[in-house]
Amino acid sequence: MNTFGRLFQIALFGESHGEGVGILIDGCPAGLPLEAEDFSLDLRRRQAGAPGTTPRREPDIPLIKSGLLNQKTTGAPLLILFENRDVQSKDYQTLQDTPRPGHADFTARHKFGKFNDYRGSGHFSGRLTVALVAAGVIAKKILTPAIVEATLLEAGGSKEIEKAVQSALEENDSIGGIVECRARGLPVGLGEPFFDSVESLISHLVFAIPGIKGIEFGSGFACSKMKGTEYNDVIVNKEGKTKTNHAGGINGGITNGNDLVFRVAIRPPSSVKKEQSTINLQTGEQVKISVQGRHDTCIALRIPVIIEAVTAIVLADFMLIEQEIPRVMR
Amino acid sequence: MNTFGRLFQIALFGESHGEGVGILIDGCPAGLPLEAEDFSLDLRRRQAGAPGTTPRREPDIPLIKSGLLNQKTTGAPLLILFENRDVQSKDYQTLQDTPRPGHADFTARHKFGKFNDYRGSGHFSGRLTVALVAAGVIAKKILTPAIVEATLLEAGGSKEIEKAVQSALEENDSIGGIVECRARGLPVGLGEPFFDSVESLISHLVFAIPGIKGIEFGSGFACSKMKGTEYNDVIVNKEGKTKTNHAGGINGGITNGNDLVFRVAIRPPSSVKKEQSTINLQTGEQVKISVQGRHDTCIALRIPVIIEAVTAIVLADFMLIEQEIPRVMR
Amino acid sequence: MNTFGRLFQIALFGESHGEGVGILIDGCPAGLPLEAEDFSLDLRRRQAGAPGTTPRREPDIPLIKSGLLNQKTTGAPLLILFENRDVQSKDYQTLQDTPRPGHADFTARHKFGKFNDYRGSGHFSGRLTVALVAAGVIAKKILTPAIVEATLLEAGGSKEIEKAVQSALEENDSIGGIVECRARGLPVGLGEPFFDSVESLISHLVFAIPGIKGIEFGSGFACSKMKGTEYNDVIVNKEGKTKTNHAGGINGGITNGNDLVFRVAIRPPSSVKKEQSTINLQTGEQVKISVQGRHDTCIALRIPVIIEAVTAIVLADFMLIEQEIPRVMR
Amino acid sequence: MNTFGRLFQIALFGESHGEGVGILIDGCPAGLPLEAEDFSLDLRRRQAGAPGTTPRREPDIPLIKSGLLNQKTTGAPLLILFENRDVQSKDYQTLQDTPRPGHADFTARHKFGKFNDYRGSGHFSGRLTVALVAAGVIAKKILTPAIVEATLLEAGGSKEIEKAVQSALEENDSIGGIVECRARGLPVGLGEPFFDSVESLISHLVFAIPGIKGIEFGSGFACSKMKGTEYNDVIVNKEGKTKTNHAGGINGGITNGNDLVFRVAIRPPSSVKKEQSTINLQTGEQVKISVQGRHDTCIALRIPVIIEAVTAIVLADFMLIEQEIPRVMR
Repeated sequence: MNTFGRLFQIALFGESHGEGVGILIDGCPAGLPLEAEDFSLDLRRRQAGAPGTTPRREPDIPLIKSGLLNQKTTGAPLLILFENRDVQSKDYQTLQDTPRPGHADFTARHKFGKFNDYRGSGHFSGRLTVALVAAGVIAKKILTPAIVEATLLEAGGSKEIEKAVQSALEENDSIGGIVECRARGLPVGLGEPFFDSVESLISHLVFAIPGIKGIEFGSGFACSKMKGTEYNDVIVNKEGKTKTNHAGGINGGITNGNDLVFRVAIRPPSSVKKEQSTINLQTGEQVKISVQGRHDTCIALRIPVIIEAVTAIVLADFMLIEQEIPRVMR
Repeated sequence: MNTFGRLFQIALFGESHGEGVGILIDGCPAGLPLEAEDFSLDLRRRQAGAPGTTPRREPDIPLIKSGLLNQKTTGAPLLILFENRDVQSKDYQTLQDTPRPGHADFTARHKFGKFNDYRGSGHFSGRLTVALVAAGVIAKKILTPAIVEATLLEAGGSKEIEKAVQSALEENDSIGGIVECRARGLPVGLGEPFFDSVESLISHLVFAIPGIKGIEFGSGFACSKMKGTEYNDVIVNKEGKTKTNHAGGINGGITNGNDLVFRVAIRPPSSVKKEQSTINLQTGEQVKISVQGRHDTCIALRIPVIIEAVTAIVLADFMLIEQEIPRVMR
Repeated sequence: MNTFGRLFQIALFGESHGEGVGILIDGCPAGLPLEAEDFSLDLRRRQAGAPGTTPRREPDIPLIKSGLLNQKTTGAPLLILFENRDVQSKDYQTLQDTPRPGHADFTARHKFGKFNDYRGSGHFSGRLTVALVAAGVIAKKILTPAIVEATLLEAGGSKEIEKAVQSALEENDSIGGIVECRARGLPVGLGEPFFDSVESLISHLVFAIPGIKGIEFGSGFACSKMKGTEYNDVIVNKEGKTKTNHAGGINGGITNGNDLVFRVAIRPPSSVKKEQSTINLQTGEQVKISVQGRHDTCIALRIPVIIEAVTAIVLADFMLIEQEIPRVMR
Repeated sequence: MNTFGRLFQIALFGESHGEGVGILIDGCPAGLPLEAEDFSLDLRRRQAGAPGTTPRREPDIPLIKSGLLNQKTTGAPLLILFENRDVQSKDYQTLQDTPRPGHADFTARHKFGKFNDYRGSGHFSGRLTVALVAAGVIAKKILTPAIVEATLLEAGGSKEIEKAVQSALEENDSIGGIVECRARGLPVGLGEPFFDSVESLISHLVFAIPGIKGIEFGSGFACSKMKGTEYNDVIVNKEGKTKTNHAGGINGGITNGNDLVFRVAIRPPSSVKKEQSTINLQTGEQVKISVQGRHDTCIALRIPVIIEAVTAIVLADFMLIEQEIPRVMR
């Protein structure tokens, strides 16, 4: 399903090499000021350009087709469309019978049959995250003054990120990374028992981003090795401020007023120029492939702003459910 | 929200020290054979009794109140109720003003005000997982012949689990652990782009279980340190069998026919007898508390079967959506 | 699906001749005062007893199994269970192969196969509406001071209701009726474009009640014969009060502050003692049946309070979405 | 909310005088042949042009932005966009303070504040039904060989439709009508207890269409005056064929294999040139208005194909849920 959310609801569409990608946002409060310029910074952070990112160049101009009047949201659904401009589909035709290892080629082909849009990963492409970032911009505005910030902690296992990327480029290989995200200034009480814990909904959306293979909140996996008295965050005032933050700002699935903190693990991109083995689905023979086309060596470089976006989307929905923000901004 | 699922839908209710807990299951195919005995093994695996588990003893008898006729499901909703028998609520009254560190006491009190059922964590209690296990039994039947199995890999950072538990007991402290879950025999093609990836839905339900702070699929966090050529699983036959399984059986959010594998991190239980500091919410003063009541020293011991249950619930829903199982078992 | 609602969500279960029926209510604000006595009046209005109603006598005692503490809702799900006491299932075994005309026997058998609970219509029975009435009691409390009231306008085409019922009883036949429902004191602005108009959601739930075959809002079918200048309700003050109320209190799917008014058409109960023809599903032969068991001659007599209930349920959800009522009653 | 459906899901957006309107369709089976030409007939049936319809002329060209490759659906979401070309917004500015009687002006203004897009009714406009018709075309293809057909039975209370329209035109007034819809060739078993009866879901979507004020299935309101033995449809063969069809093809909320039949009541359009009274929201004074702009005298003329569309959308979703059609058309 391509829809998510209860009161602040998003629906995603589009393909990497089709006409474009976009997002439909329903339930955005009326009266939120919004103009094209608001999207620039976050879209730029997601864009390629740095060493280690794809040579594909998309202008990423958000076309708002509905839900806006006089630069204010109207309360009706916002459709935001990004046209694809820099598309080279011919690179992909040869891949139809030889699925790239580590890639959705095989599963997508199985799921949707020969009708699957295989061009540049089609609907499974990271290209769609440009639309998530756009929705994130709106969600962040709703959350103000609370803020959401994510940074790349390491890439290829190294904190010397540029060096790790350079080395992968030279080897025609690819690398992953770890991103940390932090939301500050949230009220106590977001999240809902039993199934809509804050961790549940954030992880739900985070794992929709292509390439994510792990998530941990607060001390995460490390807390599996701690004693209770070590792990428990001592509350120091009536507002719930704690001395440490092993819980990552969440108790019982609900925000406790401290920083919400989590980290995600990003796998290396599966498309690499270096030769790899795979199967020919027609003949059943093992073959060697070297993935052509234009790909990211380290997609993790572009992930932080996407993580911020999905986090803000989840939090905006919680804020509406908890009546922390009105349905009309007066 | 206490509801989850699209075609196989569950709704959870109840409190630790109320009349009972239970689950309502909607969308279960008609004609599934079901009797009380089917639940015994899994419920027993979740039950306390071993060193390191709570002294509270519940018979955990599943009372099926609807949706069953002649030991076959009818297609109508199944209500499964577990009555609470062994309740000692007086231990909790003193905790209302002094929230346990690391616990939902503070957030639940804030969210639901003075109306929150504070007794034994109320609706936030791990007690509710008995009902998840019951739903899991039904989901596992639907999945047959595919199977879901989880095991405790380590507790308190140690593979010598019994020793780690013993040591925590002696220190009046608590410990966490790591559980690994594996589903075998799944078809290719479960999971849906964009937001309902297999990782998205499994993590959504896994993080609803009290005490989980991290999840990783396949190589998980380790893959953030791998090269693409290392990480990519080479496909060796037309059915998609791979040489390695770094992806944990999922590409592009969709099952690829190999084992589905993930691990979860469980924090130590927050309720410990050892003295801890907290705040008195009335006076604002720092106070010392030693948590009385009956608690688990290592809840991770009881988690594997719960992880199996939520995994099976997610997979059963996917199986129905993909029409891999019929709505009436003929 | 047996679930309905976005923030105020209900899930229905049970069978006519099983252990009982009930409803799970999620999203009820915390702090709502609630006791058994609150249900008495509405449950009594739905009960049988008057001439033209079934001789089956159920005590209809609502057992609240969760979500309540010290006679206040806690914010956790409320499970309300009604046990079946006065069950005579043997009357139905002979009907399995000879579906009653006008009844769900045939469709239910087809949909759920031989596993369908055929006893007293099973999960399709009007018996389940007792649980809707209980949920309605809670919804009405949430709506206060707004009120919802329904009355039976006519039965068997006659305003002389008692006489019409008496005549049907004598003929061993059954009759339908028309109920009008009115909600007063609603705020302007409930309902949501495009698909969640007030009419959409009320009709959705109204048609879930067994026996309803039509609904019209305001002037309804009559307005199809009116001119625009006749139909349009002239607004007479800034609060939106109108001179007439042909629109039934709804414009563009949204409440306009005037009384919400609609009428529903109830068909005659299909189970009648008078001889009818049907098919034997095994042999394909036409046979004559006279439906035994205990049935209502005029179910419309018991419908008004059920209509009130589903209306209040829809309106309570809208009130929460519009933030007209808080999630915690302080 | 602007989203509807479980497996076949639609999301609607756009405004009458904005850039355009459209619909996002998720869950359409992969492999469905689809080309622009498929939409022509139904879009033309909805278009204006005949006497009694608005002089606004829109080309209504469906732009499919995603989800299609080589004229087959891919399984990914289909975005269909209709650009607005023939817009004259200045007619509406004067109406902002003087809400048209019978119209959503007042309620929309109240709900979304001054941010509401008031131009040509904005998101509340019948203009959005062009996108519903497009989704209906796809839904009808899914339903094949079953068919859905609707016709206008009467307008302005008269079966002489042209004459009634002419007379209303001369009086600068407007008229409503009654549409009957019939679906043939449906399987037995569509629809779900308890809340998703066929009547529930069809009425839900039908009442989303601007101007509908009533709906009745089978004999509808007339059956409230019938005896049970008159109303009950005698089953004449094992497939469930009945002698009469008072139930409109639905028993217990589930299709019985006979024609699904219902009628809807359409009110007269609220915008008329004839002078009417209303309130000035700023001054509180009664004023006279004559609605300018371009409007339909009898919108009922254009409604049948819209009714077909929403009916087909509901039925396509049921067909997928019942596994009557595959998720990939092979």
